[in-house]
Amino acid sequence: MITINKHYEKLAKSYLFVDIAKSVRTYQEEHPDREVIKLGIGDVTRPLPPICIEALHAAADDMAEPASFHGYGPEQGYDFLRSAIAEHEFQARGVKITADDIFVSDGSKCDTGNFQELFSPELRVAVPDPVYPVYVDTNVMAGRTGPFSDGRYAGLTYIAGNRENGFVPPPPSEEVDLIYLCYPNNPTGAVATKEQLRAYVDYAREHKALILFDAAYEAFIRDDSLPRSIYEIPGAETCAVEFRSFSKTAGFTGLRCAYTVVPSTVQAWKPDGTATSLRDLWMRRHTTKFNGASYPVQRAAAAIYSDRGRREVRELTDYYLENARVIRRGLDTLGLSSYGGINSPYVWVDADRPSWDFFHLLLDKAGVVTTPGAGFGPAGEGFIRISAFNERDKVESAMDRIVKAVSTS
Amino acid sequence: MITINKHYEKLAKSYLFVDIAKSVRTYQEEHPDREVIKLGIGDVTRPLPPICIEALHAAADDMAEPASFHGYGPEQGYDFLRSAIAEHEFQARGVKITADDIFVSDGSKCDTGNFQELFSPELRVAVPDPVYPVYVDTNVMAGRTGPFSDGRYAGLTYIAGNRENGFVPPPPSEEVDLIYLCYPNNPTGAVATKEQLRAYVDYAREHKALILFDAAYEAFIRDDSLPRSIYEIPGAETCAVEFRSFSKTAGFTGLRCAYTVVPSTVQAWKPDGTATSLRDLWMRRHTTKFNGASYPVQRAAAAIYSDRGRREVRELTDYYLENARVIRRGLDTLGLSSYGGINSPYVWVDADRPSWDFFHLLLDKAGVVTTPGAGFGPAGEGFIRISAFNERDKVESAMDRIVKAVSTS
Repeated sequence: MITINKHYEKLAKSYLFVDIAKSVRTYQEEHPDREVIKLGIGDVTRPLPPICIEALHAAADDMAEPASFHGYGPEQGYDFLRSAIAEHEFQARGVKITADDIFVSDGSKCDTGNFQELFSPELRVAVPDPVYPVYVDTNVMAGRTGPFSDGRYAGLTYIAGNRENGFVPPPPSEEVDLIYLCYPNNPTGAVATKEQLRAYVDYAREHKALILFDAAYEAFIRDDSLPRSIYEIPGAETCAVEFRSFSKTAGFTGLRCAYTVVPSTVQAWKPDGTATSLRDLWMRRHTTKFNGASYPVQRAAAAIYSDRGRREVRELTDYYLENARVIRRGLDTLGLSSYGGINSPYVWVDADRPSWDFFHLLLDKAGVVTTPGAGFGPAGEGFIRISAFNERDKVESAMDRIVKAVSTS
Repeated sequence: MITINKHYEKLAKSYLFVDIAKSVRTYQEEHPDREVIKLGIGDVTRPLPPICIEALHAAADDMAEPASFHGYGPEQGYDFLRSAIAEHEFQARGVKITADDIFVSDGSKCDTGNFQELFSPELRVAVPDPVYPVYVDTNVMAGRTGPFSDGRYAGLTYIAGNRENGFVPPPPSEEVDLIYLCYPNNPTGAVATKEQLRAYVDYAREHKALILFDAAYEAFIRDDSLPRSIYEIPGAETCAVEFRSFSKTAGFTGLRCAYTVVPSTVQAWKPDGTATSLRDLWMRRHTTKFNGASYPVQRAAAAIYSDRGRREVRELTDYYLENARVIRRGLDTLGLSSYGGINSPYVWVDADRPSWDFFHLLLDKAGVVTTPGAGFGPAGEGFIRISAFNERDKVESAMDRIVKAVSTS
């Protein structure tokens, strides 16, 4: 009998985006003439950088001739892309990462979801709260949790962000083996300092734990004192894996390209206690279950590592950061506290009331869609996330409407 | 302590393509002036159909303007592609598959590798021998096998193809829960008849087992009496999942697009014995760990479902089938028995000696690279696979050289 993985039954259904969609539909039925402005989902809206468009066209032409046609590529990505990443993202910042440490993929959602497969189901896992649900759900599927209740799974260690710790909580006091971190953070927009990351690296080295560091939003960091990579912290090269993506950096959410960094020096342990190379293990997984990212997409990704490419990507991220400034300015006018939105495209707003109440106020009175913080975990209750990913004029109208609605409510 | 998945340690290293590459390198060093012709790896060489190139360019232009830009798409694929697949691949052949049953992905390697995640680690699994290694390795990683010895893993049921059964073995005599099938077969080129597939569907229904049917090569079937989809067998819609790919159909090995068909009627069972929908379960996995295939690639895939697209794809597969005919003609001249190569791009040659001996004969005397059948499992011993994926002139020279070399050896 074909029996299912019993852990799938523990998965709590997420109604977050379903409930949001339902509220929006109701609002639109009641206000057919009013445009709803969406600052909810974290998806980019600006076109691809022109240099990426040119690279896509050139690569499409490559595929039209036998001499330049590309069939199966290397599973870990073409060297032209892996070398460019190693040089520009790491070596140029003094970080010793080589092309061999880079594994190109079709997305960080896959990579952050798949990486836990390398490990024992008995691992103790720490995740942030509020949290990107993929870290949690994939560990539930793998059997590393108990049942779900009150917004949390038994058996997971939740590291809660709050006002007091500025949404950068310290390492857990209990012992864990695998730690998910995300900075700049989704959903709070908080960014960890070198000092704060050092505490995690020290923890990981002391406990022989591994850090999975999600740096999908690093391109939004403007403050040079903040680390863009966990490998800027000495020692991290022995205990951390980093996930990067072209999605938010260069507008690739529809093209699909990301990469995972697994330095040769990162260790894991066999059940008998002998050390083993994590990079070899990931290579085995990656080559067995993945067949490489799309060739034209890899060409488009590599295009951002020219002078012109870097300029265009900077303009793109600057655009969204200016949106975030517009959002923060509006919130300031209202005297509402907010976090993030400076080195991050997300603004995390202290709603001073339940998340869903504020969500409904903004939808019903301003016609603006945001995301209730409670949807990201219990520690998100009382907050909403406003995303800076939209066109400037829409962000400006949204904030004008919000200011009017909240100040008169 | 970060402890690894102990099942990874059972994985046997595959030296097949490493050993082939080493032999080729040695040969080239000894014969620097002689061109080596590669009929080994199953990768396409012909350019993409022109209509796909045009679709890639148009989609690249879409990504250059805010109004036509595409960010995150639906994880299960755009409706324009899923509807076209359902209509042209299934409904047009009288098979009741709808767009909702189709899950678009970036490759069948991922899909065939990932699908087993939905099930209990205790399942009894049947795989073909010779076999596409992904079916086996992903089940080893999931803990469904014992140790490896003599080319096989303990705990797996191997269904061996051989001369007597024409490389379409009957269902196993023992009880299994999950069965991998691949027709047209890689590596043997054999194609199952409706009658032969019906035996598997009957077996699956009787034992509440599930068939994972890999139809990556269905576009090469020319004999209309042969099934191109397992859903042409009544009852399969309750017990089979089908994997399809644009890789060999339309030359997408470098673009990356495939799909998995999970009809709403396919059942699986919870540990307590209650029936559950497999499609819902795969939807949960797909939306949790995958973020959709690349938008321009989905546009290129959808382009093959126009009249012109179907013509161009047919020309492409006809080209490789003609190569296969050239290969079989050469083998006939030599009086060597072969299988496949008629409704399949692979020719499976009865070497009448150990696989590696014949491989070395063809490399050393003819400068032609093939794949030793023994590399696909013990039942492949005594055979080699010749791939029709190459340019016509190379296939012709390769066969001229092989005929000369073997007839004088």
